Amino acid sequence: MHRFYAPDITETLLLPEAESAHAVRVLRLAEGDEVEVVDGRGNLYGCRISLAHSKKCGVEIVRHIAVPNHWHGTITVAVAPTKNLDRMEWMAEKATEMGIDRITPLLCRHSERKELKTERLRKILVSAMKQSLKAAMPQLDEMTAIARVIADESLPPQRYIAYCDEATERRQFEACYRPGEDVVVMIGPEGDFSPEEVKLAIEHGFVPVTFGNSRLRTETAALYAVAAAHALKQARQ
Amino acid sequence: MHRFYAPDITETLLLPEAESAHAVRVLRLAEGDEVEVVDGRGNLYGCRISLAHSKKCGVEIVRHIAVPNHWHGTITVAVAPTKNLDRMEWMAEKATEMGIDRITPLLCRHSERKELKTERLRKILVSAMKQSLKAAMPQLDEMTAIARVIADESLPPQRYIAYCDEATERRQFEACYRPGEDVVVMIGPEGDFSPEEVKLAIEHGFVPVTFGNSRLRTETAALYAVAAAHALKQARQ
Repeated sequence: MHRFYAPDITETLLLPEAESAHAVRVLRLAEGDEVEVVDGRGNLYGCRISLAHSKKCGVEIVRHIAVPNHWHGTITVAVAPTKNLDRMEWMAEKATEMGIDRITPLLCRHSERKELKTERLRKILVSAMKQSLKAAMPQLDEMTAIARVIADESLPPQRYIAYCDEATERRQFEACYRPGEDVVVMIGPEGDFSPEEVKLAIEHGFVPVTFGNSRLRTETAALYAVAAAHALKQARQ
Repeated sequence: MHRFYAPDITETLLLPEAESAHAVRVLRLAEGDEVEVVDGRGNLYGCRISLAHSKKCGVEIVRHIAVPNHWHGTITVAVAPTKNLDRMEWMAEKATEMGIDRITPLLCRHSERKELKTERLRKILVSAMKQSLKAAMPQLDEMTAIARVIADESLPPQRYIAYCDEATERRQFEACYRPGEDVVVMIGPEGDFSPEEVKLAIEHGFVPVTFGNSRLRTETAALYAVAAAHALKQARQ
């Protein structure tokens, strides 16, 4: 069945404009057709189209199913956006498919990209959420200076910073990660974190980690962290 | 230091044409400059340029370092190429970065892509191998009919087939995977494996598995399998 994203569905009983156009113009859905609508906060609504309008498609809610994320312990990745936006976009898409709670684009000393428009990324997250049959959207933050992220007291106590410098003592991420507990992993830019950034992170409880002996690109490291978190959790089930 | 790929380096003492052009024309390397050369079979050579020719760049081997893959137990993924080639290409790139031994493009009943030119993929593998500081190239097979892959007796005994059909009894991949042992994982096309294909695979010792509750795209599932294999292995180190 076709799935749509409408964050305010219970209040408006309307699909947003782009979703309305897709439903009515592209898919040619008509009144009486059944669709699924997710609100991005873990709710799935079985709906019936009541007004096939290509800008404001009206629906009637037939049933409600709570669809919480299937993993336990939130997964947050704070990652410096890559110079090439495609790489950041596919990482966000794949992380959403695998399951992630929050993506914080990091502004670092060595960041090659200092600005990031999140609008396009948000669309990719919506589409990946629908495609992978989830009802919850990851939180996507605006670009945030690393010092602010590090100082954020709302971050969970399980904190890691992936760092490439072999001179720094680092633990193996997979060996120290505690599955099921909220986690935040920071991934640096192409030029890595600066020593000052790593020092500040350590002072705030971040544990320097390595993902092994491959030198991973920024976006690969971010995705690997998400995959590893799921794999290690699911190995225990 | 710049790293080049020259499979026949010990015999020819020359970089291949494209690598020569890159070294001499793009990077403007000159006689006496030091470079690293990998042969794709786990050997890294420290070299010095002896003839800066833009088609046949000659080198002198100064030292040899064996760089075996850092993981134990080969990882083979047999995956149906996606309709959109970009998706297959990034999967191959990322799997190479994380570490994979063999990629077999699978021709299945429901394959949306029936042909695959491996030339471009091979270039992506070379570049990912160099970028992630490896000296060994994954083996990239030509597109192979699934029945032939399943019947291949040289495949390791640890065999999984990822299958989406919830009516089939499946194990959780992460819970049954034995890290460190050679493994082959089959990933189906967008339309999944046919029941006959799954039946045949089971008869040949493949265990039907799921990666969890997210519906992953073909390329995401393939990459997830590689990441999970590394994560589960590295958790034990």
